[in-house]
Amino acid sequence: MIVILKKGYDERQLDELRRWLVNEGISIQVNAGVQSTVLGLIGDTSAVDLDLIEALEIVETVKRVQEPYKKANRKFHPADSTVMVGDVPVGGGHFAVMAGPCSIESPEQLCVVAEAVKAAGAQILRGGAFKPRTSPYAFQGMRESGITLLLEAKKQTGLPIVTEIMDISHMDAFAEVDLIQVGARNMQNFELLKELGHCKTPILLKRGLSSTISELLMSAEYIMAGGNENVILCERGIRTFETATRNTQDISAVPVVKELSHLPMIVDPSHATGFSRYVKPLALAATAAGADGLMIEVHNNPAKALCDGSQSLTPPQFEDAIGAINKILAAR
Amino acid sequence: MIVILKKGYDERQLDELRRWLVNEGISIQVNAGVQSTVLGLIGDTSAVDLDLIEALEIVETVKRVQEPYKKANRKFHPADSTVMVGDVPVGGGHFAVMAGPCSIESPEQLCVVAEAVKAAGAQILRGGAFKPRTSPYAFQGMRESGITLLLEAKKQTGLPIVTEIMDISHMDAFAEVDLIQVGARNMQNFELLKELGHCKTPILLKRGLSSTISELLMSAEYIMAGGNENVILCERGIRTFETATRNTQDISAVPVVKELSHLPMIVDPSHATGFSRYVKPLALAATAAGADGLMIEVHNNPAKALCDGSQSLTPPQFEDAIGAINKILAAR
Amino acid sequence: MIVILKKGYDERQLDELRRWLVNEGISIQVNAGVQSTVLGLIGDTSAVDLDLIEALEIVETVKRVQEPYKKANRKFHPADSTVMVGDVPVGGGHFAVMAGPCSIESPEQLCVVAEAVKAAGAQILRGGAFKPRTSPYAFQGMRESGITLLLEAKKQTGLPIVTEIMDISHMDAFAEVDLIQVGARNMQNFELLKELGHCKTPILLKRGLSSTISELLMSAEYIMAGGNENVILCERGIRTFETATRNTQDISAVPVVKELSHLPMIVDPSHATGFSRYVKPLALAATAAGADGLMIEVHNNPAKALCDGSQSLTPPQFEDAIGAINKILAAR
Amino acid sequence: MIVILKKGYDERQLDELRRWLVNEGISIQVNAGVQSTVLGLIGDTSAVDLDLIEALEIVETVKRVQEPYKKANRKFHPADSTVMVGDVPVGGGHFAVMAGPCSIESPEQLCVVAEAVKAAGAQILRGGAFKPRTSPYAFQGMRESGITLLLEAKKQTGLPIVTEIMDISHMDAFAEVDLIQVGARNMQNFELLKELGHCKTPILLKRGLSSTISELLMSAEYIMAGGNENVILCERGIRTFETATRNTQDISAVPVVKELSHLPMIVDPSHATGFSRYVKPLALAATAAGADGLMIEVHNNPAKALCDGSQSLTPPQFEDAIGAINKILAAR
Repeated sequence: MIVILKKGYDERQLDELRRWLVNEGISIQVNAGVQSTVLGLIGDTSAVDLDLIEALEIVETVKRVQEPYKKANRKFHPADSTVMVGDVPVGGGHFAVMAGPCSIESPEQLCVVAEAVKAAGAQILRGGAFKPRTSPYAFQGMRESGITLLLEAKKQTGLPIVTEIMDISHMDAFAEVDLIQVGARNMQNFELLKELGHCKTPILLKRGLSSTISELLMSAEYIMAGGNENVILCERGIRTFETATRNTQDISAVPVVKELSHLPMIVDPSHATGFSRYVKPLALAATAAGADGLMIEVHNNPAKALCDGSQSLTPPQFEDAIGAINKILAAR
Repeated sequence: MIVILKKGYDERQLDELRRWLVNEGISIQVNAGVQSTVLGLIGDTSAVDLDLIEALEIVETVKRVQEPYKKANRKFHPADSTVMVGDVPVGGGHFAVMAGPCSIESPEQLCVVAEAVKAAGAQILRGGAFKPRTSPYAFQGMRESGITLLLEAKKQTGLPIVTEIMDISHMDAFAEVDLIQVGARNMQNFELLKELGHCKTPILLKRGLSSTISELLMSAEYIMAGGNENVILCERGIRTFETATRNTQDISAVPVVKELSHLPMIVDPSHATGFSRYVKPLALAATAAGADGLMIEVHNNPAKALCDGSQSLTPPQFEDAIGAINKILAAR
Repeated sequence: MIVILKKGYDERQLDELRRWLVNEGISIQVNAGVQSTVLGLIGDTSAVDLDLIEALEIVETVKRVQEPYKKANRKFHPADSTVMVGDVPVGGGHFAVMAGPCSIESPEQLCVVAEAVKAAGAQILRGGAFKPRTSPYAFQGMRESGITLLLEAKKQTGLPIVTEIMDISHMDAFAEVDLIQVGARNMQNFELLKELGHCKTPILLKRGLSSTISELLMSAEYIMAGGNENVILCERGIRTFETATRNTQDISAVPVVKELSHLPMIVDPSHATGFSRYVKPLALAATAAGADGLMIEVHNNPAKALCDGSQSLTPPQFEDAIGAINKILAAR
Repeated sequence: MIVILKKGYDERQLDELRRWLVNEGISIQVNAGVQSTVLGLIGDTSAVDLDLIEALEIVETVKRVQEPYKKANRKFHPADSTVMVGDVPVGGGHFAVMAGPCSIESPEQLCVVAEAVKAAGAQILRGGAFKPRTSPYAFQGMRESGITLLLEAKKQTGLPIVTEIMDISHMDAFAEVDLIQVGARNMQNFELLKELGHCKTPILLKRGLSSTISELLMSAEYIMAGGNENVILCERGIRTFETATRNTQDISAVPVVKELSHLPMIVDPSHATGFSRYVKPLALAATAAGADGLMIEVHNNPAKALCDGSQSLTPPQFEDAIGAINKILAAR
């Protein structure tokens, strides 16, 4: 960490800063230049609060030289990591498509969709059991019984499964889940992240709606610091001023994350856009940009076909998208 | 809810939509106009997912006429609500200042600050025991023992206390807390909100960094739907492109929330700005705009005075700010 | 346009609104429903200010059914438009790469880069003569003499040229330019747009940093309404909270614009990201998403090679990117 | 400017950077530390492109120590500036209210409003003659003849006038205007700013919808660098994800600008919010935060009273707001 002091700073205040830092185990190198005085902070500065230093009266500005994440950092782990989801590898050259319904509604629905996505080429089955809903009056998911259905679909199709956890108290229900998803709204639910760091199941960590890439990596670090290094990251759209799509798919997050971290990085174009007609082009874009996989919502319920529209593809649309994705994969 | 259909929509798809809505207990009034066909959805549409309807192939656009929140809605509760925090009323004409350290660090620190903020005129003592930190390597707060110190400071000063909860499993430690804070990062931790709806302690709900005002009110609705109607809302800065301040204090949230809801609305200028030198002007702005109170960080630790800079005021700065706030209060 | 009235609206106010609208040539159809009264506005509502109607006391909400743009609207022009830039077609199945230096610095520099991008496969030469710079103290471009150099490079290579106009008073210098660029900062310089509507040269209209897609199309409409329908649109990154890239490339703008409009839509990954190492993956993403072309900065100046870093590719990097782009093009 | 190099940087690349900087008149001080090598750039770095340096392969990060604006910078001009608008001082302890209609529509309308705002206590009359409209089909203002009406209203009421310029070619019409407004959409129309730097009339520079405070000050610097130091800055709302208001009034811009610059800073709550019912609370907030003045839209047209709603206050509402503003002014 580099700290640039204001001109004419108070020497006593610098002494106090120095004492405090030394106390935190940081040593300081002072470069008194003509134009400004620059402090080099040497040691493990990952616990030092940059904002706090920056707000000091004597400080002009602060810059981290080392990223505050270590286990997620490519600098300390240059090779791509591969995370095994059941027997499906993700990352390190392995591209994986996770697909399935937004919400699990019934055994029939899940069964039909699971078979359809498998037939089309998906390697992992997704399905929402615990559903984070903006309204307390909206359907909150089938919860534990949804996971039971998912496990049956896993048995039937052989596909490993991924589903979202919303609270650590539900952990027992996730014992046989292959990949536990942390949703965008919980990306900074630090108590949940800490607990997930103590299990062995791989974690799919979705980026928060207004979280920076650096914050996403810090949340991965929370899980990894606890001992669970099987983390897959997921870009699912950020919140911007644009209203034509539900969120804005930050496509640049793919190369940026892959530069900064060795963890696999997938993209969820369904949530990023919110409209099924944009899912295919955004899935192709993510694939071309170098993503390690995709998460796509697929739904099929003839009885209420209309209401399944939204951001989900029908099985034929999904099959068409997979075909196009494979062509891009072959070309990249 | 008003649904406007596309020109030349498919009649069978409309029939399916109709069947599905009727099934959800919604009746439909069709207005076939020259220019477009408009559906009026009659009944309790609060559980109907607007995005889902909007994404249907036959639908041009959708507009809610009724807000999806009920208990938080001023339309159904025209008078301002007053929430009692211990014996301190907040809202309904009662302005309250909550102040104290960002993190509780020691009995001495908390004691000194508590006495200082009381002397300056604060009515409620704040202090962070469980701390949401971006980095897993940063100090995570004194946790349970921090709450113990807070309860001692309460006994000593007579001030009711407010502190943040991060996970429902910590609830026991909050038994004697007067006001339980839900932080910005947990505003959409729906499982936590549901549980807090079952307790009787007032809740301070902070707006998420990228949450709309409507989402803030929906999160309040989660708590209220569970039976706990003692909710105080708090604007604490939203995330924008501007980097001169840590967040952007959305001052318009004050009149907008007070128009839409009867709940008390306070502002936290310390987190909104991130720099102590901007706290006073932003506190005055919030007061002038009609806020029901303020939450301000105050710190005093001579031993590491330097490092208390950040967004916290010193006791003398706080006293000065309170004097100015009172003048604005008298003038509004 | 659909106007939904508040419950219990004042009849006299409705009469006044009606009179005003009729005066504007709009006729009104009133649908008085159980739940709400809905007005259908019939006629050319493109000049009616939605915000103004929405702010009326009796109005709950307003929705446009027709987009306010006509000439740019795919509804009235279903087939893709192809814009001829010199003899290079853009759009309607024709993919074009525009490349060249950010700023024109000297005949040698431009000559070397022009030959290099031509050799690598670029069809159009770009080069900045008039430069919008944040600082008045920064190099403002070679201006008129830069265009002279560009015209020489055109003669030499046979590539049509594109360069940015900053003020209508410079128009004479653009007489032989094949494609006139309107930069992001001038996207809503309406007087400039109007004037460009009166010339015959194709216009490259870049999206503003915080402009919605709808606003981009309205700005295209300004040019087209004046008679110049040769408009190419360009996504070049929007401003968001993320700081890892200079801007955020809104990849979803590609399918959204292509759905709403018949105009060609290209992407500029150099400005979108600001770092040369992310240009190739973002170019591939744009190509896969269906863009009609790309604009890429290429620079080559051995004497100050260091300073060409930034967002520009070197000729070898550009050649490598073009190869990858062509593979994606073949696969899409 | 401080440049921090990457570990293990290429010495030849550093030599090239050094040569290039020396060529630009910058001298360099190298501090080779244990943890990192830091370059101090000495000299006038205001023309050096930070982004360009940052993108170099050998550079880890860059920080400006000196702000790139000079004439607008409080460091070089500690005392508040007062700008005279006609005989009305703005800034330096002088608070001024500018009020009037959004668009000038007729002599009667302007006359009535001008008298009303004068009676209520406004010191400067505003009125839109040239109107930047998103749609080419919307009313574009009365243009030159609107300014004629404004000059008549000035003669009648004695109030100095402010109105917006959209293109430098209209400059003649502004010869007798007391304060020339540059609208948000033209804040980075650098050619216009340069030209305005050559006139003597005070300039009201509005912040762009997505412009940072630093960019606002750089645009002021463009005008001031040309010789015209009579610049008043104006916060008028920034674009964020929130849709409850048309824009988000960045109230923190008031103390931040007043810290960084000596120029007067006013706020336009009418455009910031877009709804007349929020104008008064946001005007009070701006006043309490330390603004040097306000710009408020006032309208009065009984014949189409309904359509004047929007963001404009009626004269009685304005009178009420002025009363409240004066109370806050007295209390601050």
